[in-house]
Amino acid sequence: MKKLINAPDAVVSEALLGMEAAHPELTIDHALRIIYRGDAPVAGKVGVISGGGSGHEPMHGGYVGMGMLDAACPGAVFTSPTPDQMLAATRKVDSGRGVLHIVKNYTGDIMNFEMAAELAAAEGIEVKSVVTNDDVAVEDSLYTAGRRGVGITVLLEKIVGAAAEQGRSLDELVALGEKVNRNGRSMGMALTSCTVPAAGTPTFELGDDEMEIGIGIHGEPGRYREPLGSAAEIGERILDPVVSDFPLHRGDRVLAFVNGMGGTPLIELYLMYGEIAKLLDGHGITIGRSLVGNYITSLEMAGCSVTLLKLDDELAELWDAPVNTPGLRWGI
Amino acid sequence: MKKLINAPDAVVSEALLGMEAAHPELTIDHALRIIYRGDAPVAGKVGVISGGGSGHEPMHGGYVGMGMLDAACPGAVFTSPTPDQMLAATRKVDSGRGVLHIVKNYTGDIMNFEMAAELAAAEGIEVKSVVTNDDVAVEDSLYTAGRRGVGITVLLEKIVGAAAEQGRSLDELVALGEKVNRNGRSMGMALTSCTVPAAGTPTFELGDDEMEIGIGIHGEPGRYREPLGSAAEIGERILDPVVSDFPLHRGDRVLAFVNGMGGTPLIELYLMYGEIAKLLDGHGITIGRSLVGNYITSLEMAGCSVTLLKLDDELAELWDAPVNTPGLRWGI
Repeated sequence: MKKLINAPDAVVSEALLGMEAAHPELTIDHALRIIYRGDAPVAGKVGVISGGGSGHEPMHGGYVGMGMLDAACPGAVFTSPTPDQMLAATRKVDSGRGVLHIVKNYTGDIMNFEMAAELAAAEGIEVKSVVTNDDVAVEDSLYTAGRRGVGITVLLEKIVGAAAEQGRSLDELVALGEKVNRNGRSMGMALTSCTVPAAGTPTFELGDDEMEIGIGIHGEPGRYREPLGSAAEIGERILDPVVSDFPLHRGDRVLAFVNGMGGTPLIELYLMYGEIAKLLDGHGITIGRSLVGNYITSLEMAGCSVTLLKLDDELAELWDAPVNTPGLRWGI
Repeated sequence: MKKLINAPDAVVSEALLGMEAAHPELTIDHALRIIYRGDAPVAGKVGVISGGGSGHEPMHGGYVGMGMLDAACPGAVFTSPTPDQMLAATRKVDSGRGVLHIVKNYTGDIMNFEMAAELAAAEGIEVKSVVTNDDVAVEDSLYTAGRRGVGITVLLEKIVGAAAEQGRSLDELVALGEKVNRNGRSMGMALTSCTVPAAGTPTFELGDDEMEIGIGIHGEPGRYREPLGSAAEIGERILDPVVSDFPLHRGDRVLAFVNGMGGTPLIELYLMYGEIAKLLDGHGITIGRSLVGNYITSLEMAGCSVTLLKLDDELAELWDAPVNTPGLRWGI
């Protein structure tokens, strides 16, 4: 295992020290492992929090800031954060208008966020949740009942965060979040495995001439393995199931998001984006907005995922709204 | 070789198709391989261009836009672009106030930019150059006479680009660029090699328990190899030579830039940034600004580099000025 770390069990806590040093605008609770906007709670605004296992950076900690999340709770690598973290974050970001939990559909995350919501409710804090489950690769999987939550989570945090900034109510944000999730689909693939520091060995084995289609963001099994294909072939393998699952139709407008799993260079992600754009053009689907880069990763896994979000004017405007976080920043 | 590509010799041209699809605000000349600001030439502004081998993305193409570069010329992977590209870019971005070439100190880049500058001068375009050579690892190297140009190039393009936007003259930009380079130092390290698509095999071999200190951004040999160390040890190995080379003194203020080589996950880069911040604190050096992420890469190489830029108020203000490029974006 070759990593820039000191000790496997100190990776998350030490990375938080680095985040604090690099981003003085954030406030970090090192004891509980929570990343806050420096100005939390923001008066008059619904608090928006998320969290999940570490190893997907910049998600979620890198999306804390104006126009996106008020707090993020990182767990150990690929491990759910605890209800204690989520409850403390919920308390701190509540300005009296309630708190939205954005939860990726993994059994541990769902269970712990539900427990935190119940505890918060017992303290008189109104909490509601939106669950993302956009991965079309598999219906049930190693860590989920139902589909996994993946790339749409990044877009949802941005769009719902912008709406929260406008002063929308908790119920309105829930409806918006559900709309984003309903209009989003993703699928990923891997060229290599990744290594969880505490495990010390690769999460799975993949032959030198093989790729895995439909991989999860923790290296969970996908749909199938096959011989390594060209970028054009890979584009079809991951885009076609996404397009047909919606289904999308000629004339639809989407936000097209090509995400890197962490170990794939940007030049390859742009090349893949070109393939995806060509395929969408063939389907008669218009790209209204785009995002290319490493935004929801699996440590150093090589590979990529594609996420499509069907756009309307409301979603496009909220996407364009100002955001000021370490991972996404514009308009400020 | 596991890469998201179609054919080794089509990587750069196909990545440019993807960039064009993802960034409609840029204009791309596919025949000559030049990335332009969509509004080039910008009236009343000195044109600023750079270029170099591909494989270091987002540098340089990802730094084209308001507040940074007017054009970038990508060569083949790890191969200098041609004088033809540089000349065409120089012509197109000249609004009559001259053109600045930002050149990393590699023999091929230097030679080709000099030739392009002479050809442009023969056409009556005033061209001046700034050369970056901030890598303290080695004095001469595989591809250079003198030190290599590395991380400071990103900071220089941002700072000089901001000054060009303010309407400063070509001579003023040269003086500013030389000041940035003079006040910048870098050093890098690698945990793994990278594979140039056209070669198909790793650029160098490194044992499972080894790291290379002082590596170049093309996998060129560094200072020495030694057994894999902890992040704290690696921090000392790359920061101490940088600090002592200036030299920096207690009370100095710097921009601290921890850069990923492409294959190292962001959680490790933040952890390394924490180590660098601790070491700087021990030296009594203040971090005035920071940057953490993959900004000047070596394909999928795992590893990192540290760049320090000694700040004064002028440099800090130009760093903070608005920028709107695929790779760096704020204030807009």
